[in-house]
Amino acid sequence: MSGILSSYVADAWWQPAAEDLADAPAAEVRDAVTGDLVTLVSSAGLDLAGAMAFARDTGQATLGALTFHQRAVILKQLALALTERKAELYELSTRTGATKTDSWVDIDGGIGVLFTYSGKGRRELPNARVQLDGPVEPLSKDGSFIGRHIRTTLPGVAVQINAFNFPVWGALEKLAPAFLAGMPTIIKPATPGAYLAEHMVRIMVESGLLPAGSVQLVSGSIRTVFDHAQLGDVVSFTGSASTAESLRLHPAVQTGGVIFGAETDSINASVLGPDAEPGTPEFDGYVRQLVTEMTTKAGQKCTAIRRAIVPAPLVDAVADAVRDRIAAKVVVGDPRDEATTMGALASLEQRDEVLRQVQKLTDGGGRVLLGDGQAATAPDAGAFLDPILLSFDDAEAPRVHDTEAFGPVSSLIGYDTPARAAALVALGGGSLVTSVASANPEFVAQLTRRIASGNGRVLTLDRTSARASTGHGSPLPNLVHGGPGRAGGGEELGGVRSVFHYMQRTAIQGSPEMLTAITGVWHAGAATRDDTHPFRKSLQDLRVGDRVVSEPRVITLDDITHFANFTGDTFYAHTDEEAAAANPFFPGRVAHGYLLLSFAAGLFVSPEPGPVLANYGLESLRFITPVSPGDAVRVALTAKQIVPRETDEYGEVHWDAVLTNQNDETVATYDVLTLVSKTPEPAAA
Amino acid sequence: MSGILSSYVADAWWQPAAEDLADAPAAEVRDAVTGDLVTLVSSAGLDLAGAMAFARDTGQATLGALTFHQRAVILKQLALALTERKAELYELSTRTGATKTDSWVDIDGGIGVLFTYSGKGRRELPNARVQLDGPVEPLSKDGSFIGRHIRTTLPGVAVQINAFNFPVWGALEKLAPAFLAGMPTIIKPATPGAYLAEHMVRIMVESGLLPAGSVQLVSGSIRTVFDHAQLGDVVSFTGSASTAESLRLHPAVQTGGVIFGAETDSINASVLGPDAEPGTPEFDGYVRQLVTEMTTKAGQKCTAIRRAIVPAPLVDAVADAVRDRIAAKVVVGDPRDEATTMGALASLEQRDEVLRQVQKLTDGGGRVLLGDGQAATAPDAGAFLDPILLSFDDAEAPRVHDTEAFGPVSSLIGYDTPARAAALVALGGGSLVTSVASANPEFVAQLTRRIASGNGRVLTLDRTSARASTGHGSPLPNLVHGGPGRAGGGEELGGVRSVFHYMQRTAIQGSPEMLTAITGVWHAGAATRDDTHPFRKSLQDLRVGDRVVSEPRVITLDDITHFANFTGDTFYAHTDEEAAAANPFFPGRVAHGYLLLSFAAGLFVSPEPGPVLANYGLESLRFITPVSPGDAVRVALTAKQIVPRETDEYGEVHWDAVLTNQNDETVATYDVLTLVSKTPEPAAA
Repeated sequence: MSGILSSYVADAWWQPAAEDLADAPAAEVRDAVTGDLVTLVSSAGLDLAGAMAFARDTGQATLGALTFHQRAVILKQLALALTERKAELYELSTRTGATKTDSWVDIDGGIGVLFTYSGKGRRELPNARVQLDGPVEPLSKDGSFIGRHIRTTLPGVAVQINAFNFPVWGALEKLAPAFLAGMPTIIKPATPGAYLAEHMVRIMVESGLLPAGSVQLVSGSIRTVFDHAQLGDVVSFTGSASTAESLRLHPAVQTGGVIFGAETDSINASVLGPDAEPGTPEFDGYVRQLVTEMTTKAGQKCTAIRRAIVPAPLVDAVADAVRDRIAAKVVVGDPRDEATTMGALASLEQRDEVLRQVQKLTDGGGRVLLGDGQAATAPDAGAFLDPILLSFDDAEAPRVHDTEAFGPVSSLIGYDTPARAAALVALGGGSLVTSVASANPEFVAQLTRRIASGNGRVLTLDRTSARASTGHGSPLPNLVHGGPGRAGGGEELGGVRSVFHYMQRTAIQGSPEMLTAITGVWHAGAATRDDTHPFRKSLQDLRVGDRVVSEPRVITLDDITHFANFTGDTFYAHTDEEAAAANPFFPGRVAHGYLLLSFAAGLFVSPEPGPVLANYGLESLRFITPVSPGDAVRVALTAKQIVPRETDEYGEVHWDAVLTNQNDETVATYDVLTLVSKTPEPAAA
Repeated sequence: MSGILSSYVADAWWQPAAEDLADAPAAEVRDAVTGDLVTLVSSAGLDLAGAMAFARDTGQATLGALTFHQRAVILKQLALALTERKAELYELSTRTGATKTDSWVDIDGGIGVLFTYSGKGRRELPNARVQLDGPVEPLSKDGSFIGRHIRTTLPGVAVQINAFNFPVWGALEKLAPAFLAGMPTIIKPATPGAYLAEHMVRIMVESGLLPAGSVQLVSGSIRTVFDHAQLGDVVSFTGSASTAESLRLHPAVQTGGVIFGAETDSINASVLGPDAEPGTPEFDGYVRQLVTEMTTKAGQKCTAIRRAIVPAPLVDAVADAVRDRIAAKVVVGDPRDEATTMGALASLEQRDEVLRQVQKLTDGGGRVLLGDGQAATAPDAGAFLDPILLSFDDAEAPRVHDTEAFGPVSSLIGYDTPARAAALVALGGGSLVTSVASANPEFVAQLTRRIASGNGRVLTLDRTSARASTGHGSPLPNLVHGGPGRAGGGEELGGVRSVFHYMQRTAIQGSPEMLTAITGVWHAGAATRDDTHPFRKSLQDLRVGDRVVSEPRVITLDDITHFANFTGDTFYAHTDEEAAAANPFFPGRVAHGYLLLSFAAGLFVSPEPGPVLANYGLESLRFITPVSPGDAVRVALTAKQIVPRETDEYGEVHWDAVLTNQNDETVATYDVLTLVSKTPEPAAA
């Protein structure tokens, strides 16, 4: 590497022309450890408007042609392609100052997001392009007019503006949900680690897996993005609160309908419970986690613990334990050295900035307990810094709650009552995460409920979870990442929740027929077909609305008695006429609900081998009208939703089951879940 | 009424002092029909900061002491109190220019929102203070560390700034979800109909039902609200896009973390399908709906149809039909007259404003087909205006897509292809609602999927839904109201979806014990108690974690054969060893899933009469491991969630059911839903 870093625009690699660079020199990016020049970065002359238009046209078309599941399969393939070449990424990552552990968080962590979204996309979204949100809303007595909420893909481009600390994870955690939603992405990495992000994009491009226009890369400034953004576009920013504020003020966001999401570093807290005295596993876990958060990625994490809020009598004990653990475990140095456990900051400029913020903290009442702004054991040329621990005698000193030194820096403050601990957490003005270490469920529950509204995530730590805990500072793909107020007010990750940030929710009203046509899912009242038994149809032939209506079956008292004796379910409502009649819900002895389910299965079954492979479950069963001896029950079973699998020879079919009695009253409703072969021949598992 | 309108602040009625009014004269509010002075409105001297602090302290405390269900019950009681005195509201409503139908939309519509939220709150939220969002997220192999999302009440005040057109509905549709969420509200009505909103608040106050600090009223300006707003507050605005824009720019929103939601009037569209030629029910329905939207509330609805997008060859036919229908059905005049079908605009100023916008439309290429800016049949003194229909030869003329005349005004434009119709809808820049009239499901589905991302709601209209349809212009409490872009980018209503706008979502991580303590819902892995059979415990005694573990029951081949014959479920997997073994999921003949459910019920049942009244349903059943003849199955049933009803002598209990085999493999998992008495004696229904 050397020369100027490429961008990837309109499905081609691009570099600035010499004449463009003449006016605006490219930025120099240096090795955080050695200070050597790694690359130059510039987007001078890049046609950003063209890139965004290419995404909206080509990217929307190629992704829009795919279903959620098809996109999910590509995410997995991309994850595999990156895994295969991840050694290349690890190699480059070292130059950002990252240790192997830091790189693991960034690279394997990022790839893990792709795997998780691939799995969740296939499990939690339909194999379709429209997502259904919530149940049918009845809007008329006769069922001829109903409502439902759907989500459809936003028609624009997803632009991500990333922070410097996790060049791979930061890009992939935003790419995965947008891609799954069907929105094309433009990645703009921070300049310091841009070469690592560029290489990741290069691997994805070279894999040949990316649909045309689905991913582009802008290496260098993207300052004019809002001038070209329009309704339907989403811009997601990770970085400082002040930059987020200035971006948000653009008219495209204020009045143009461009969605702007921000995830900003916040003044996160970690609270030690009053029960967690020295010697308890919770105390040890608290200290271990605090040191981890100070030193992983040299503390350059938006989720790192900035405020250690501990019982006032334990401040000294915590300080001592942190000091001891750092002395014993932390070796600052070149990440290439085996012994190193903490690498460099991203750049010398970044180290200067951290020290400026530490000065602000000490000016604001902080006493330095540990660290002197140097790195005793590390090479001279790199951006190294030993961990710095401060303490504030005044727990409400404004600086400790509003100043972030984005490096290996934390401050200790003491509290007396749980209410006061909660109030101190809240002084952070909204955080990404707060952790609570305590073995006392009541303390944890009370504190968590109090602080939850000011936090995007709360991690509780006790002896039973300590071993498996993923830790305070780790956003996970299945949990929401983001927080109110200073944390940016946005949400990322959280499984399919973040997919929906790239989709519009719309209420749909109309007849069951129209809602069926729009959603692809059968709605009660829409057309049905009663020709061939639908269990004889493979996914090739089955359509929503295919139905079987059974003959009625009379339920006898003998049936009920027999079932009670056979199953052992001798609940009085089935066996004792007098007691049953005294029950507020039953007219007398009634059939078991499970008897009705079982008989219904006998009524709708098609016993010979065929495309239906198994009944794997059931949803939303409700018993509506009790069934007395002599009642006749029939079942109508209608194919409601068909979900072919992309990577198997079968798929899921959800059937709408309705049991009615001789008076056409509804006895029970539920969804039967089956696996059905794609072809008339049963599939292999 | 006369003199100066009261506000309701810190649970006391308040009026400005004379000296405050000396500097800033109160606004005059006149009868829209007669021009008579109705009242003066001013908030000069009102302690808004104090009101907001009172809400955050007292209102949060009183509402926070209640559960979702308890708040829901109060909403119903408030609805009943308003219903009892609604004649007073109808009387005042006439003075705003509203016909009886208009008033019904506002007053009964508003009360209906309270009823709906009361019902949904009790059906769709737990009887608790914390709401669970989504399922458990497993975060460790051994289950000792898990994740879950919860929602908790935002700690601030909900301020609503309402439009003039629906003084009652506009306040109640925002109050209901905030109240249910546990957030105190400050209502600020628009000045023109403020006396109607004031009277509604007065009825609620006099009912004695309002928890202290839960509702306040500011009659008059609330201009300084953002100077006093802070993180945890929510400001919801309904009105013009330009006002929303200026409010949004306040630092409290931009950087202070105050949540700002806007619902602004938009340039909504209604599309006629190519199949819906004159003579079809869809054509007639389309015209009827268009005239309704032009004339209801004199067209002063943010959801009214501004753009009638019809097949180009049908423009004249639609214009003729609209003209005929208006001539036959619409009588503009004093709402007190029986014959009147369309009342006055809110004020003479408002009528002038509408005519200015009509001028803009005609300057921009609109031809007036109907209406001359007068109201031929109406009294002189009132703000009356006959319906105005325009047409644009250039379907893409910018003015028709960006100019809103907020009165009885619509414009006709023609389209050729469905893609073009969708493109024309999109030119509105984001709308609250678009309707589509067609009997062709394919046209409707394609168009709806195309336009959904630009609309908060899409109503489809065909002959089967026409009779029951609630119509283009009616936001419903169970459907989302709001839309992207010009419509404000916010969401209101939509059932519990809008409750969540007043709550913070937080990811919680920890041990099952801690998640159980925080949520009040039992999580697998947390402590269990196996003392008394939990079915013998009433809600007084039952606690989450109470459990029964059954003895194992061996499933024999005879059982399976017997069950097949008894139920008729002779599916080959249960009856034919060879065919079963050929199925990809079964080792050979296996037990029916429903046999396992039935046996499990026999294993966990406690047959004698007791507090458990009925098993009313089942959720999330999954069959995991097939059961072969000779396997021994046992069931563990644990009380997971307890939901006592506020207005019944019983409640719902959700039980976690896990079936395991002799190798401790999981056979099936599901939730059993039961009704359980609050006391040891069975309750009356």
